[in-house]
Amino acid sequence: MVDVATLVEQAREGRPRAVARLITLVENAAPQLREVMAALTPYTGQAYTVGLTGSPGVGKSTSTSALVSAYRRLGKRVGVLAVDPSSPFSGGALLGDRVRMQDHATDPEVFIRSMATRGHLGGLSWAAPQALRVLDGAGCEVILVETVGVGQSEVEIAAQADTTVVLLAPGMGDGIQAAKAGILEIGDVFVVNKADRDGADATARELNHMLGLGESREPGDWRPPIVKTVAARGEGMDEVVEALEKHRAWLEASGELAARRRRRAADEVQAIALAALRARIGDLRGDRRLSALAERVAAGELDPYGAADQLVADLTGA
Amino acid sequence: MVDVATLVEQAREGRPRAVARLITLVENAAPQLREVMAALTPYTGQAYTVGLTGSPGVGKSTSTSALVSAYRRLGKRVGVLAVDPSSPFSGGALLGDRVRMQDHATDPEVFIRSMATRGHLGGLSWAAPQALRVLDGAGCEVILVETVGVGQSEVEIAAQADTTVVLLAPGMGDGIQAAKAGILEIGDVFVVNKADRDGADATARELNHMLGLGESREPGDWRPPIVKTVAARGEGMDEVVEALEKHRAWLEASGELAARRRRRAADEVQAIALAALRARIGDLRGDRRLSALAERVAAGELDPYGAADQLVADLTGA
Repeated sequence: MVDVATLVEQAREGRPRAVARLITLVENAAPQLREVMAALTPYTGQAYTVGLTGSPGVGKSTSTSALVSAYRRLGKRVGVLAVDPSSPFSGGALLGDRVRMQDHATDPEVFIRSMATRGHLGGLSWAAPQALRVLDGAGCEVILVETVGVGQSEVEIAAQADTTVVLLAPGMGDGIQAAKAGILEIGDVFVVNKADRDGADATARELNHMLGLGESREPGDWRPPIVKTVAARGEGMDEVVEALEKHRAWLEASGELAARRRRRAADEVQAIALAALRARIGDLRGDRRLSALAERVAAGELDPYGAADQLVADLTGA
Repeated sequence: MVDVATLVEQAREGRPRAVARLITLVENAAPQLREVMAALTPYTGQAYTVGLTGSPGVGKSTSTSALVSAYRRLGKRVGVLAVDPSSPFSGGALLGDRVRMQDHATDPEVFIRSMATRGHLGGLSWAAPQALRVLDGAGCEVILVETVGVGQSEVEIAAQADTTVVLLAPGMGDGIQAAKAGILEIGDVFVVNKADRDGADATARELNHMLGLGESREPGDWRPPIVKTVAARGEGMDEVVEALEKHRAWLEASGELAARRRRRAADEVQAIALAALRARIGDLRGDRRLSALAERVAAGELDPYGAADQLVADLTGA
């Protein structure tokens, strides 16, 4: 087994196997997890993280791939985290091996990792921040996080990204209506993909209208732009990159980037602390304190809340 | 608002509205939750709790109703907790009102409460123990917990019950096969319902065979009996009660009843303690300690695990 310091060094050099192994270690909550995180820390905080979300059928995977190409034309090292059970790239999610998008299979400056939406250790919210940290530490300048825009996962992804791109497509029935307010709120940049199809202009107009409705913006607030693309032909991708870079500049100038990252770090620390406390309580099975309290609860001498108070006081030294 | 002491007193007298209001209070985690639990404690630990589970279509609701009748013939006060979104009794789950089974609508010694499988506060595992405690404190001698036998909920219910009844029916396709090993392990008593149908004997034989396969029982171990019923006509219900009473006697004689209840109490205390710790961490949003740690993590000066360690140490005074 190669040691963690060596793996981190190799990942920094851009060796894909090392990156893949580090992600596997953090995904599996391996004993080396803490060591990996500590070793990566000095190199993190550099990557710009972009979340891509949208309903099935809008062309998320195609758009992600086209966006990788656009960033590669700018010479950037790119990471992709595909958190989408229906994605063609997610086949390897449970095998833990590295899966590459067809177009980027031979590019050593692109790292692609797929991840099951819900893993055995609590899923996305648990493992995604760790995997992003590995890609960040491995020198990816841009990280694209692709997720299916259904339910909770889109919001969780938005919480992990510096910038969130919401994808739509014309002819998806009641496209925007279905997207509802939730998805409008998390979008920093909107993309109407498949713009060569009938109804693309109508979709963009409707979207523009809906975004305008919520207009109570201060001067200096961000106004989400709408970009039309045909990702399958790579059309409009440079405009998407331009919109992203504008948003990034705004994030930096407004102080919002630092604020978002602090919030994310707070979420992450909180989640880990809670897991640690849970493990500590879990360890109490067989502990004499809990047994004694349970005995009294079972006997009807003490109510479970009173018992829990005593247990917490005991654990926290309060 | 009637005070908690009065509600508990009225519940002890068998007044259904008081029982219903107490359950609503604990379900909603009302401010009076702790007071309710503390007030009920001296009266708990008397009820015999029977879990009923099985796939949709085996006749769980009918069996529960018939079992209520059988226990009523013995003069017992009976509580029913229906944790099953597909149950005809669960209509009132979200309204919080008391729902009764048709046959027992006019019986003042039967309390029926339905509960959504997943509530807004974390669902079954959270609210069910509290509701059981209310029914127990209200003097129910037997409490039947009916749950749909799908996924995790059946196991959670088994953890709440003194005795678990697994229901099967002939002609359910690959009935027992579908039930798999999991459901065989949690069953203390097996019921083949709809025993007037073709294939009932085959189902019972197959079940008997499968239960025998795992045979590595010590003398004195419990051998789960198989009872055939036609619940819709009340046939075989006295035999089910007999099997339950035998299991209860075995639980008491073997010390297993006390052990199961201690385990349950430990689970309950643990869950409450964890929720309290989670709330305490949740309260830290905006707290200077977490903000300062998050700042350092965002700046790449500290890894999130190191930060979480410091937070936990701070919280637990370690």
